[in-house]
Amino acid sequence: MEFEGRDIISIRDFSLEEIEHILESAARMEARMGERLDLLQGRILACLFFEPSTRTRLSFETAMKRLGGEVIGFSKAGAASVAKGENLTDTVKTVANYADVIVVRHPREGAARLAAEASDVPVINAGDGSNQHPTQTLLDLYTIKKEKGRLDVCAAIVGDLKYGRTVHSLAHALAMFGASLILVSPSGLEMPPEVLLDLKELGAEVTAHNSLEDAVREAEVLYVTRIQKERFPDPEEYEKVKGAYKITLDTLALAREDLIVMHPLPRVDEISPEVDFTGHARYFQQVRNGIPVRMALLALVLGVE
Amino acid sequence: MEFEGRDIISIRDFSLEEIEHILESAARMEARMGERLDLLQGRILACLFFEPSTRTRLSFETAMKRLGGEVIGFSKAGAASVAKGENLTDTVKTVANYADVIVVRHPREGAARLAAEASDVPVINAGDGSNQHPTQTLLDLYTIKKEKGRLDVCAAIVGDLKYGRTVHSLAHALAMFGASLILVSPSGLEMPPEVLLDLKELGAEVTAHNSLEDAVREAEVLYVTRIQKERFPDPEEYEKVKGAYKITLDTLALAREDLIVMHPLPRVDEISPEVDFTGHARYFQQVRNGIPVRMALLALVLGVE
Amino acid sequence: MEFEGRDIISIRDFSLEEIEHILESAARMEARMGERLDLLQGRILACLFFEPSTRTRLSFETAMKRLGGEVIGFSKAGAASVAKGENLTDTVKTVANYADVIVVRHPREGAARLAAEASDVPVINAGDGSNQHPTQTLLDLYTIKKEKGRLDVCAAIVGDLKYGRTVHSLAHALAMFGASLILVSPSGLEMPPEVLLDLKELGAEVTAHNSLEDAVREAEVLYVTRIQKERFPDPEEYEKVKGAYKITLDTLALAREDLIVMHPLPRVDEISPEVDFTGHARYFQQVRNGIPVRMALLALVLGVE
Repeated sequence: MEFEGRDIISIRDFSLEEIEHILESAARMEARMGERLDLLQGRILACLFFEPSTRTRLSFETAMKRLGGEVIGFSKAGAASVAKGENLTDTVKTVANYADVIVVRHPREGAARLAAEASDVPVINAGDGSNQHPTQTLLDLYTIKKEKGRLDVCAAIVGDLKYGRTVHSLAHALAMFGASLILVSPSGLEMPPEVLLDLKELGAEVTAHNSLEDAVREAEVLYVTRIQKERFPDPEEYEKVKGAYKITLDTLALAREDLIVMHPLPRVDEISPEVDFTGHARYFQQVRNGIPVRMALLALVLGVE
Repeated sequence: MEFEGRDIISIRDFSLEEIEHILESAARMEARMGERLDLLQGRILACLFFEPSTRTRLSFETAMKRLGGEVIGFSKAGAASVAKGENLTDTVKTVANYADVIVVRHPREGAARLAAEASDVPVINAGDGSNQHPTQTLLDLYTIKKEKGRLDVCAAIVGDLKYGRTVHSLAHALAMFGASLILVSPSGLEMPPEVLLDLKELGAEVTAHNSLEDAVREAEVLYVTRIQKERFPDPEEYEKVKGAYKITLDTLALAREDLIVMHPLPRVDEISPEVDFTGHARYFQQVRNGIPVRMALLALVLGVE
Repeated sequence: MEFEGRDIISIRDFSLEEIEHILESAARMEARMGERLDLLQGRILACLFFEPSTRTRLSFETAMKRLGGEVIGFSKAGAASVAKGENLTDTVKTVANYADVIVVRHPREGAARLAAEASDVPVINAGDGSNQHPTQTLLDLYTIKKEKGRLDVCAAIVGDLKYGRTVHSLAHALAMFGASLILVSPSGLEMPPEVLLDLKELGAEVTAHNSLEDAVREAEVLYVTRIQKERFPDPEEYEKVKGAYKITLDTLALAREDLIVMHPLPRVDEISPEVDFTGHARYFQQVRNGIPVRMALLALVLGVE
């Protein structure tokens, strides 16, 4: 299995064995978090964030620094040469002369793949529009594996399943590993037919619900995502849906004792703060798990792991 | 005296002995500035600046880097998840998974205390609204101690004494150490009665003036602060006051030879640039003193000093 | 030859021998790029970018980090104390207390010289308005020397030669080294008479053209610069000129086989992307050469090279 020099653009570029290898590498990184690691000393990561995403940027920066590496970059397109009209390709070709690895976040679908083509050094996709966000999927898988000991779990995925394509990636990856999926979404925001077909082809057991209650009763993992106001033509409709899909103590009263609740964060209103103090909440651990997962990826593509 | 793991939110959280301990620790740091220190190697500081404050942010970053540590963070709320509607608590809980210590600057009063409650790692307040700015007070004390050899000095505090609460903290701390205070402010911007009561209870000798001249004649320390235009309903009134409280060579002609002039900076128009070249000016040394003071605080709360 | 503590404000401050010394030092840095250098460990560079310039900022940051040093700074005036009305002198005097060397980028002509006067530590000009950008000139010279083995080349400089003063610096420096210059510019954007006089006094052979074709036939180096729309009162005139000065495969069909094409980047539309894949293109190597050149300058002014 060869990772050195490879780009990380979409979870679909990786085989089941390769994903397992990344997760094992992340577990080794987590075990060594207390040590002073210098695996990437003298190496430079460029974080090119063409749209702001503090959480993801700080997570990558932390991962690089925990490995002894250095970080350069920008966190908004406004501060970049882009303002002078430069195209993505030229920016990436330039930065590839400064850095040993590049992390790209871009509002446009396909931007990460384009960047990878322009770059001589490995490119990691930190989200390109609503398209792909493979390191999020990997840290989600890592969290489930760590909490449940396996990935062939019964997972309920709740929220906007139509537009949130990172949810499509997660469902795809879970299906690869034999998970059974309960899909819960408001009417009009259901998982698109082509994704359902993909999941079926992977042999996954999939059920769809409009009601949160049934899903919560069965699931071992409850994965909650944002429902964006902009998706609704009628603001009243949004308010109704928002209420119906909010996770509260009442919702969780129906749950299995070992249910874990996950969320990619930032949350707005989807999970009540009182849930934070229950044994179900795992979203902040999920954040923490992003560090060893990204450490593993950086070390792998730079050929030191 | 235990500092490891402690939050630094307000100067009022610290006893006289604790403040002395911090100042002594800062003096040891200053003595070692020429060395390559690696006390905080492998540790990460997160600077969360929800409003810009370049001076303070760069000072903390420098302090951390002079100790061998690393820095992550953001310098404006716009670039942060806050833009997506996330609350302060979630941001801090997230970042506490990345960093070993957090510095928070926030426009809202009480934000630093809230952040400390949410965080598993120590939080240092770098200014929350017009409320507290304890590291500024500590570097002010450090500067006076270094220049005068003691803190029971005769200090004149000049400017807006009503709204500038960091001035309240400084007055409180100086009173704790037995200083006598001369308060000089325009009519309407006097020190509030509750602060005067606090100073009296600490046993401080306090006199109040509207005239700068009398204060300058007596003082060993002249602490100048900004008078903000927004405080005046009438712009003409502001212009008059601004002129009357400006420190020039003429003002200083009346002063004791050993008077030192301090200012938290940035200044706008309160001290004439010609004063920079006199033996009285200490405001740039004050800036420099911020480094060892913040080095000491970082080392103390991380348990390596 | 003494560089320690020196400011780098304008290429005109340096003798021919000094420029040669910098270029040789850069060559030594480039030869050691694979090593883990720690020449500047424990030293801090402050990057004060009062206007955005991602390329230049990232290049300096990379250079400092490749030498084992640390970087602080800001990349936009908005995030700085400047917003509070502070003047450049006070900002620089403050930052000189934090850092061992300062890089300044500022929209105003003469700002870098002013900063150097205020600072106790060396200041490097990373561009002050349309005035000077000495590190760009040095990396241009380094690239020509590296590619051609000498600097007394036949160089065509194309574009806006009137307002682009960095082009004046480049022409001056090339003339110092005995280059012959072909100047190609649209009517109205010709090299100003005082610059032509300066080049003549240096003994340079200078010819001026309005036509790109003649220049391309003769030149060993084709240095292309942006033509800014704002310079033209009539948008139609701009469109015509833009087309006439665009470098394409057709333009290069006339060229010597060993012609190299350079550009300070970012480009907008001056060089067709298809040129990137020819043997003539050197603009991305130029970017890469910025790293050893800036490493050399940082090491020289800090007295470790």
